[in-house]
Formats: sequence, structure tokens, C-alpha cells
Amino acid sequence: MARETGGGYSESGGNRSLPRWEDHRAMFEEYLEGLTFSEEPQFSGLVESMRYSMLAGGKRVRPTLCMEVARVFGAGPGHVLPAAAAVELIHTYSLIHDDLPAMDDDDYRRGRLTTHRKYGEALAILSGDAFFGEAMLLLTDRQEGSCEQLLEAVHELAGATGVNGMVGGQVVDVRNTGAGSGIDPETLALIHTFKTGSLIRAAARIGAVLAGAAEGDKEAVSEYAGELGLCFQIVDDLLNATSTPEELGKSAGSDAAREKATFVGVYGLDGASREANASLERSLYALSRLSPEERELSGLREMAFFVRNRAR
Amino acid sequence: MARETGGGYSESGGNRSLPRWEDHRAMFEEYLEGLTFSEEPQFSGLVESMRYSMLAGGKRVRPTLCMEVARVFGAGPGHVLPAAAAVELIHTYSLIHDDLPAMDDDDYRRGRLTTHRKYGEALAILSGDAFFGEAMLLLTDRQEGSCEQLLEAVHELAGATGVNGMVGGQVVDVRNTGAGSGIDPETLALIHTFKTGSLIRAAARIGAVLAGAAEGDKEAVSEYAGELGLCFQIVDDLLNATSTPEELGKSAGSDAAREKATFVGVYGLDGASREANASLERSLYALSRLSPEERELSGLREMAFFVRNRAR
Repeated sequence: MARETGGGYSESGGNRSLPRWEDHRAMFEEYLEGLTFSEEPQFSGLVESMRYSMLAGGKRVRPTLCMEVARVFGAGPGHVLPAAAAVELIHTYSLIHDDLPAMDDDDYRRGRLTTHRKYGEALAILSGDAFFGEAMLLLTDRQEGSCEQLLEAVHELAGATGVNGMVGGQVVDVRNTGAGSGIDPETLALIHTFKTGSLIRAAARIGAVLAGAAEGDKEAVSEYAGELGLCFQIVDDLLNATSTPEELGKSAGSDAAREKATFVGVYGLDGASREANASLERSLYALSRLSPEERELSGLREMAFFVRNRAR
Repeated sequence: MARETGGGYSESGGNRSLPRWEDHRAMFEEYLEGLTFSEEPQFSGLVESMRYSMLAGGKRVRPTLCMEVARVFGAGPGHVLPAAAAVELIHTYSLIHDDLPAMDDDDYRRGRLTTHRKYGEALAILSGDAFFGEAMLLLTDRQEGSCEQLLEAVHELAGATGVNGMVGGQVVDVRNTGAGSGIDPETLALIHTFKTGSLIRAAARIGAVLAGAAEGDKEAVSEYAGELGLCFQIVDDLLNATSTPEELGKSAGSDAAREKATFVGVYGLDGASREANASLERSLYALSRLSPEERELSGLREMAFFVRNRAR
């Protein structure tokens, strides 16, 4: 099923003949840095907490994916910056809420104190809440595009975050925490299809929508991104099981300690590695169905390998 | 500044010559009852928790206001049901999160256990989160209207819930909890302009937008609703200070016990009553600037009196 992939699995995300990924990320960080949300002095504490969370670095997989997909379909990557930021704000809110004491109860994220440990639980909950409205405002007020394109982008982002999206997946994940390796593979797949996959699919699809891609291309790019998201999560589980806290920038081994349902728990280290490779192959196959020319797709192929081979 | 209001302040919300309010509410409850969000069995626990919260009754001020405003501008009240529900879902999420231990720490709401007391804190946080996406999906997937109208509705709802809306107001409210009567009137006004006022303004404005109202009418109806929201909050404070738990359906006197910043704390009982009356007058003045004929506005006038005179 896999197409010719050029360098096989040894081709890494560090291939510097394609520096687009870093260019997108630098452009995105600069855009994000400029978001200040409010001039009202009374809201400065809220804005500070939001900016603490959203400017903590991170891989920026979702926004750069959105930008690269837009580029592939003929728009400038800068064209979709507001939409890319909207997706990243939703991602940021989900991290803040996932870290809360009632959920994963994490003290560290990306090497820094989590939002509730830094600003208190109330402000953490509310910072997460505020990101949702601000994300939608970026789409309606800052993003350029036809009315139909913008409304479709709103629809995609809303769907990715509702019951049949990120939140549904997170609920099933929370419920199965403690189940450890006792979880069935179907439930594990469902958790991550929704919890991680929904938003990554939306990021890619929104890039395609705003670049005016055809329906078939939107479908294929969604499938590519869904596999990217799945692969991302499997690799997350692998890293959590095998890394030191210093390597990871957060508490390593924490999944096992909580008996969270993970791919490593269900398939073992080797089995999870194979699942990640299979997901990578499927993502590359989806790429082969896109209408743009082969050479235009090199960035997306690189991203798939990066997600598979990243060390943190 | 006040216009001729017919029956003065003694005209109550119980005026049964204008039964529209109850008709809207019955129609709205039926629509809300039909929202099930997902067919996925794994998400049934999430859906149950969401429906527990959203079907707990309540006054439905925001959705019925949205419906009545749409009617005033020539659309059927049933036309805006998805948008009205979207607004109510956002309101419901804010109640769930406000009740959390890290915020107001309330055990009861509308005479029943709060969501986190019934379903646990993790599911309460996530139910709130899920409502946001589902609200936006109602606007993009279920609401009829031109693309421009729908996008404007999304913009209004997003703005009402972001930093410069409901969440900003809530943050300042939480920060001033414990300040009691020590808060300055300007901060108190700011809290409620944003915390309660934003969403009520959006409810009314979205009704006007979807009915195709002119820009000046949208402005006036926003102003009317903003005053309605302010009045609503002042009356909430009055009721909290003077009612029994049975009358209120939640813990009475809890604001004072927490030293929350309230209009009663700042202005006293008589002063807060006067503020509520002044707000009612301003809302009626805003109504007088609307272009529809006087007799079409009777429902909105009744609603203003209802909000001022309600006993719970």
C-alpha cells in the first residue's frame, strides 16, 4: 500500500534540504507573539496567563501543517496565519485543561510550570475558556477569505473540538485512565482518533479550505493528517515510556505511573513502533492521492517523517 | 430620559396578555430536548452530563430574547432556534465552570446538584469545554441564513465569550471575590458589563442579525439587551441577599459569605434597587429608538419588566 518514499524510514525530519518547516514556525511564532487580545488593564492578568501558555514554545505541528497545506494548494503560508493561530489556541486550551488536578494533574509542561501551578486553578480554567472565543475571533475577524471559506473553517474547527472531536476523545481517555494495558485496541484507537487526530485533521483541512482546494484534495489531506496525528500520539507514548524528564521537558514515565491507556501498554514497545510505522505509511499513501505535483509535496512528506522520528 | 412605559414599574413579567415569553420558552425547551450531540456509545457519559446541565430548566432569558428580537424584526421565532440554543449552550458551559471548586465552589444550581458534584470534576470541565464546539456547530450546521449572517452570528458569539467578554468579566469577578463592599463601582460595573452583559447582548444582536435588521436597529437592540443584562445581575444580587435557599433554588446569602463583589455590597439594598430601576429605564429608552412599530415591541418591554421584577 505504501508508495515510494524516497529515503525509507531513515529519512528524518532533520533533512535540511527542505527548511520550510522552520521558516513556517519562525513566521508563526512572530505572529503569535503579536496577539495581545485586549487593551483593558483589568484583563491584563488573564492575558498574561494566556500568553504564558501559548508562548511556551512547542513543536507547532498543527499551525505549521496548516501553513504548509495552504502553500501546497497555492496560497502563501502567511495567508493562513490567523487560522493557524486559531488552531494552536484551541490546542493550547486543551493542554491547560488536560493538565488540571482533576484531569492529568501535571506540574510541568514543556519544561515549565503548568498554567494552574503558575497562575492558580481558577485562572487556568478561565484562560482555557478564553482561548476558544479568541480562536473563533481570529477566524472571523483576522483571516482573509470568502465568506464560504471562513464559515467552513469555523465549522471544521468547531467540529474538531466538540463531542465528536477532541473533547469526546479526552473523556474516554480520562475514563480509561487506570485501565493500563487492559484497554482494548479499538477503544485506544478511538481515543486518539478523536483526542489528537481531530484537531490535526482540522488544521490541515482548514489550510486546504482557505487555499481553495478541491473536495477530493480536502479529503485526502484530512486522511494524511489523521494518520499524522495517530503517529504523533504513538510516538508520544513511546517517548513517555523511554525518555528521561530532561529529554522530554515533562515528567517521563508518568503515563505508566497513572496506568494511562497507551499504545506501549497495549502493543508493547516493539508493537507500538510497528504501529507508528504503519501509520506513517498510510499517511504517505494519502499524500500520493493529492492533485498537486509530486515536488510540491516534499514538505508534507518531510513532516510525516519528522513526526515519526522526533526525539521529544 | 425614560419613555412612557404603560404600566410603570408595577407592570410585571406576569402580564398574561402577552404570553409570547412562555410560548418561546416551550418551543425552545422542545428544541433543546432534541439535541443529542452524538451517536457514539463511548461518548454517552459525556452527553448525559451535558444534557443534565442544559436541561435543568432555568429562565432561558437569552434564547427567548434571541427569539423575540428575531420576531420583532420580521422572522419567525422558530427561525433562530439553533442560534438561540448556541447562546444557551455557552451560558450553560459558563455556569458549569463557574460552579467548580476552584471558582465559586457551589454544590447546588437550580435546585439540583451542580455538574461536578453529580458527575465529578473532570467530566464537568470537559462538558463545559464540549459545549463551546457544539454551540458553534449549531450556528454553522443547523442555523438557516445567508453566509454573511451566519458568520456575523459566529463573530458575535465568539466575541461575547472571549477575553473582552464573559471570561474577562469572570476573571475580574474571581479576583475581587473577598473584596466585598470594598470594590469600586467602576470595577463592579465592568465585571457585569462583561460577565453577564456580553452574552445577553449577543443573544439579542444575533436575533437581529439573523432577521436581517438594519445596523442602527442592531445597535439599539444591543443597548437594550446590555441594560437588561445589567438589571438581571443587580436583581440576582438583590435576590441572593434576601431570599431563602428554597425560594432561590441555590444557596442564598452565599455571595455575602464569600464576600463577593455585589451591587448590594456596594450600594446597599435600597441603592441596588434604584440602580436596577435606572437600568430598566435605560433599556426602555433604547427600545424607543427601534424602527419596528410600537406595538411590535410589547414583548421586549414585558421582558425588561420581568427581569426587574422576578422573584427567583
